[in-house]
Amino acid sequence: MSLLTSFSADCNVAVIGASGGIGEAMLRLLSDDSRVASIHALARSGADGSLPKVSTGSIDLSDEGSIATAAQLAAKNDALDLVIVTSGILWEGEDLRPEKSMRELDLQRLMQLFAVNAAGPALVAKHFLPLLRKNSKTLFASLSARVGSISDNRLGGWYSYRASKAALNMLLKTFAIEHGRQWPDSVVAGLHPGTVDTALSQPYTSRTPKETLFSPATSARHLLKVMNQLSPEDSGGVFAWDGSRIQY
Amino acid sequence: MSLLTSFSADCNVAVIGASGGIGEAMLRLLSDDSRVASIHALARSGADGSLPKVSTGSIDLSDEGSIATAAQLAAKNDALDLVIVTSGILWEGEDLRPEKSMRELDLQRLMQLFAVNAAGPALVAKHFLPLLRKNSKTLFASLSARVGSISDNRLGGWYSYRASKAALNMLLKTFAIEHGRQWPDSVVAGLHPGTVDTALSQPYTSRTPKETLFSPATSARHLLKVMNQLSPEDSGGVFAWDGSRIQY
Repeated sequence: MSLLTSFSADCNVAVIGASGGIGEAMLRLLSDDSRVASIHALARSGADGSLPKVSTGSIDLSDEGSIATAAQLAAKNDALDLVIVTSGILWEGEDLRPEKSMRELDLQRLMQLFAVNAAGPALVAKHFLPLLRKNSKTLFASLSARVGSISDNRLGGWYSYRASKAALNMLLKTFAIEHGRQWPDSVVAGLHPGTVDTALSQPYTSRTPKETLFSPATSARHLLKVMNQLSPEDSGGVFAWDGSRIQY
Repeated sequence: MSLLTSFSADCNVAVIGASGGIGEAMLRLLSDDSRVASIHALARSGADGSLPKVSTGSIDLSDEGSIATAAQLAAKNDALDLVIVTSGILWEGEDLRPEKSMRELDLQRLMQLFAVNAAGPALVAKHFLPLLRKNSKTLFASLSARVGSISDNRLGGWYSYRASKAALNMLLKTFAIEHGRQWPDSVVAGLHPGTVDTALSQPYTSRTPKETLFSPATSARHLLKVMNQLSPEDSGGVFAWDGSRIQY
């Protein structure tokens, strides 16, 4: 059984942020997938190396040197078909919470969320796009979020998180253009996982109806299906868990 | 003669970034405008205080304390009708140039452009939106750029600048929602000045046809006309020098 029928039959995957809720669920699905040959599970720490086909490594998205080192290690093996970035931050402790009002805006939070949610994935793209296979469908996907859509923003609030995801969407579009110019079979895309029962969204799901709150496994399965459906003309776009395109 | 006929007859204006090419040209037009009563010209240094109606002050957009202090000083006078942020950075010296390729991406440049082009104007909005007049048309406008449009991005490159302006557009939209909820006559908007013959764009205009390269005075005049045309239903949008809306 495979969810990745549109990729090469011996699919090599790198998952960055592999210890997070969605990243870990993806590892499990990928490990079970008959078309997946190898999985690099990269995280600051704690990626699960006990699953078949999975090798683990450490990566710190705030340190380009560590990203370059992880890429060099991955480059020693076969070319990659699929790179998935599942890292991201919305809140941290009591001090770093999404802004309910402009009064809560501060420079440190703006910078931190931009660094983790936009600059980090961009540096991963810089070092991992060159490792993708050259002559078949490849995909570089990063988790984005519907609240990163400027046109879809109707509620306001969450300034730093929204800004970081809008910036990420722009960066992904820009990578899609440059990478696609040389490799027309490639896809670069942002993905909205839905509202998922993970540490990231846990404080903000009390009013989410149970039937729209996904488990990490459900979201990961949806997202892998979307990745399988995406084609080069979708490159640069942002897509929800159900495959629908999200406007910028 | 006035370009600001849609604003109150005694219009109080703050210009942040008043020593830049476009900022300075705006100061001159505003100083000449019959409906303008006062102008706060704020810059890190060097705003021109010799013009009629203009008082100068210093502001450092990387230091929220200095923004708060400038806002407190402005708050001692009459409420503001118009706040215009014209600061911004595209390049600096030899080391900080827009990326032609993903290989030139680095964390420091990504962070610096986000800080100056997105976080800085956001902190200005936080402290200056509460100073706007409550019961007539008001406008908070910040220079954005067409290259900050994700959907309009066809050429690629300029990663950091594009990302910073996309983030700015999101922040402006988010402010528009929150401020507009309380003050429905308010407008918050991003403005694309065209390609202007300023220090910011100077290294990148060699192939710009002369008839589409604006002087700062021409661009400033266009932008003030657009500001005069904008209405509350435009709030949260990005508009070019000719009044046309730019998609996100």
